[in-house]
Parts: sequence; structure tokens; C-alpha cells
Amino acid sequence: MDKISLFKIGGKVIDNPSYLASFLKRFSDLEGAKILVHGGGIIADQMAKRLDIVTEMHEGRRITSRAMRDLVTMVYGGQINKMLVADLQRFGCDAVGFTGADAGLVRSKRRAPKPVDFGYVGDVTSVRTDMLIKLLRLNLTPVFAPLSFDEEILNTNADAIAGALAQGLSAHYEVHMLYCFEQAGVMLDLNDTASLIEVLDRNYYQKLLDDNVITAGMLPKLKECFRALEGGVQNIVLAEAGACLDHAEGKAFRGTRIAL
Amino acid sequence: MDKISLFKIGGKVIDNPSYLASFLKRFSDLEGAKILVHGGGIIADQMAKRLDIVTEMHEGRRITSRAMRDLVTMVYGGQINKMLVADLQRFGCDAVGFTGADAGLVRSKRRAPKPVDFGYVGDVTSVRTDMLIKLLRLNLTPVFAPLSFDEEILNTNADAIAGALAQGLSAHYEVHMLYCFEQAGVMLDLNDTASLIEVLDRNYYQKLLDDNVITAGMLPKLKECFRALEGGVQNIVLAEAGACLDHAEGKAFRGTRIAL
Repeated sequence: MDKISLFKIGGKVIDNPSYLASFLKRFSDLEGAKILVHGGGIIADQMAKRLDIVTEMHEGRRITSRAMRDLVTMVYGGQINKMLVADLQRFGCDAVGFTGADAGLVRSKRRAPKPVDFGYVGDVTSVRTDMLIKLLRLNLTPVFAPLSFDEEILNTNADAIAGALAQGLSAHYEVHMLYCFEQAGVMLDLNDTASLIEVLDRNYYQKLLDDNVITAGMLPKLKECFRALEGGVQNIVLAEAGACLDHAEGKAFRGTRIAL
Repeated sequence: MDKISLFKIGGKVIDNPSYLASFLKRFSDLEGAKILVHGGGIIADQMAKRLDIVTEMHEGRRITSRAMRDLVTMVYGGQINKMLVADLQRFGCDAVGFTGADAGLVRSKRRAPKPVDFGYVGDVTSVRTDMLIKLLRLNLTPVFAPLSFDEEILNTNADAIAGALAQGLSAHYEVHMLYCFEQAGVMLDLNDTASLIEVLDRNYYQKLLDDNVITAGMLPKLKECFRALEGGVQNIVLAEAGACLDHAEGKAFRGTRIAL
């Protein structure tokens, strides 16, 4: 079974130009099949502000109005995705940018309007794995924006897209799923890198949940990780972006490995 | 030799939602290999206005500042390209959107800054035909935004991209290059559809040039057409979008055919 490295980078990595550039350079140099999934970052919020598009919220969660969906299509699918593709091509990586609509690669279902209507948001239902594999066999490196397709483009969580891609590929590749952060991984105390959890299994995860140790931002990521592991993904790591690259290069790395 | 239909639609087609929808529906139903190249339209100008980005001009021609390049990357590569891809996918056409940076498909050279610096504008130098053919053999329908790649993304004339793609493919396919307009084709009098030129060859073209009959907007298109014909493209038509579709369907059509 061939190996594939599937990286997910979030807003914090995208928003830091020099950190991003050094990540993309090393990512470009990685041998073998690889995929990059990116999130949004502050660029979309800045653009919304400039265009006077108000971000509606419900209990701390964002509602995607039609205007906001059009904006994220533009910013995630155009500005950020094509900037990443151009940077990777410049570094010699044969990148190609996709939304879920392109070649119907990431299908979703628009979230039900009850109890709360989150607007133009999609939950991933399927990945077109056969086509994705054909594209990978052309030695292309797909770069996915956090947008899926349900008869129209929908705003979609990047972690969920990464998880669905990893699960779809796990029957055909040895998948290494790498969630890149600016921090060292899952830590008991965010201010103490010595508190890094090196292996997080279901039991330990449940204990941390019961003890309320896991921060709100980390919770959906870890849920996605366990779902992906149960779905057959061979290897999942949450670590600082450089450490994720170390791992993909087969070196020792510092970070959190997820285990069943 | 397999046949391929390469359509170019400009801003006027994109800016008219019902006209665009009926075009995309019929385009989706076309059998065989096909490609869509799109231009910009007023959406970019509207967005520039909302973002207070001033369009610098030189003798009536637009200069692409860095801010404007970032904007067209967002609007052409994100908003318009992904809207077209999503519409086509909804109509059952397996569309996939590209800029010239994606898979390095359309390379260009940034225009020299002398005598006039037009900014972030690229002139097409090469098409990665081998990769494009591999993508077509997956039965995908590429949709190209008017953006090329020269170590970074550059604003690029959509007619030139269409012409370069057609030339690159003409050694491998019988290429039908279809420039879609809202008007009937090349006319001696824009207000009189009876003045349509059904066949325009080099000699006739030169005569029209000498007589100053060709409008400024049509001039670069026709130049591109003759260049493409000389480069091996088998069939070039300028016509109303519906007539271009008639031609691609093998029906009689009303429009201008370019001949050497």
C-alpha cells in the first residue's frame, strides 16, 4: 500500500506569512503522494468588514448568510486557495486547487434549518474517492478549500473535509493525517509544553472530557480524529506544523498521536 | 481524431443570469470533450468599487495593480469560476475549475514594464497540453479563469488563454473554438444583423482593417483567431452563444467562421 500524507492547516498557519512560507517550502519537498486541506483565517473576516457584511452568530457559532457564502467562495476558493497553489507551484510542487464542487470531489448536505438555521453550511456526506485517486495518480497535489457541494457551494469545516478525505483514501493508501497547529499538540495545560499528551486514546480522551480539560476549539477536531480512526485511517497526528513535517519525513517528532 | 469544443464566454454572457443559465444548461448537455474559458464581467469592477480599489488606466487600457490582481484572483478564480463549476455540476456536467497556476496549466510571462507598466498582467507563453489531455481523459470538463502563472498569478486576457489552449490541443484533437457573444458574430454594421460576415478570411480581414470597419473590442479577438488558425486550430467561429451551441451540436448555425 502506498503512503499518502494529508495535511490540514488552519487559519493561524495561513495568517502568518513567514511561518506559512517555510511550511509550504518543506511540504513541497516531501516525496510521495500528499494533499493539503486549508481553513479560512482572518482574511475572510477582514474582507467581510471591508464589504460591510455582518457575521451573524448563534451561541458563539457563526451563521453563514448568502452574502457570507459568496464571500467565502471568493476568499477561500479564490484568494487563499490560489495563493497556496501558486506558492507551491513556485516551490516545484505540482499543486492543483479544488473546492468540493470541482469534479464533485466533496459532497455534503446542507445542515437542517432546525433547531437553528446556520445558513449555507454543509456537512460532508461523501468523497469521490475514485476520481481523487485518478488525480493523485497524475502526480498532482490537491489543495482543498473548506467548501463542499450540495447542488451549490456550502461553507464547510476544514477538519471535517480532511477527515472525510482521509477515510475515503484509507482503503487505498496508508494515510497519515496531520493536523498542523502553531502549538505542540494536545496539552493538559496550554501554557506548559511539558504537558503535551504524546498518545491520546479513547479512554484517556473520555477522561479528559469528563474532567473538562479539552478546550472548545479542540473538541470537534478530536471528535473528527476518532471518527476517522474508526473509519480506517491508519495514522493521525496533531502537532506543530514543523513537527507534522518531521513525522511525514519519517523523522522523530514531538506531538500528539491519536489511538483507538 | 476526437473532437473537442472549446467555448469562450465573456463578461456580457456572465453578467446576464438567465442567458448564462440557459447557455450552461445546453453546454452541460453537449456530448464529447469540451472546455469553457470565461472572462471577467462587471462583477470585478463592482467589487473594486466596494473595496475602494481604483482601476488605473493608460490610454483606455486597464493597469493591474497588486490590489487589483489580488481582487481578480478572488473574483475570477473564486467567485465566477466556482459559480460556473457549481452550476455545471448541478446540470450534470463534470466540471472542474482552474486558473493557470493549477497544475501549471497556463504559463505566461509578465509583460515588460516598458514602455508602459501594465502591472500584474501576463502574456501566455505555453500550455501544459500533456496534463490537460490527461485531465480530459478522465472525462472532466475544465473551466478556465482568465488568470495565468509566471511564478505568481497574473491577470490575463481570456481570448488569449482560449487561443493558446486551442492551439495546444489541435495536434491531438479536432478543435472547434467557439467565441460566444451576445451579438450574431462579426458584422459590418453592429446595428444590422443582415450585415453579418459569414466567412472571414485573411484578405477580407485586411480589407476591413484598412477600411477601419473592425471595432476596437473585436480587433484583439480576431488577431487571436488568425494566430490560432495558423497554429493548427481546425475550426473557429464567432457567434451568439446559442448559435455557438448549435454549431457544437452539429446543427446549422448563424455566425462568423474564420478562415485562412
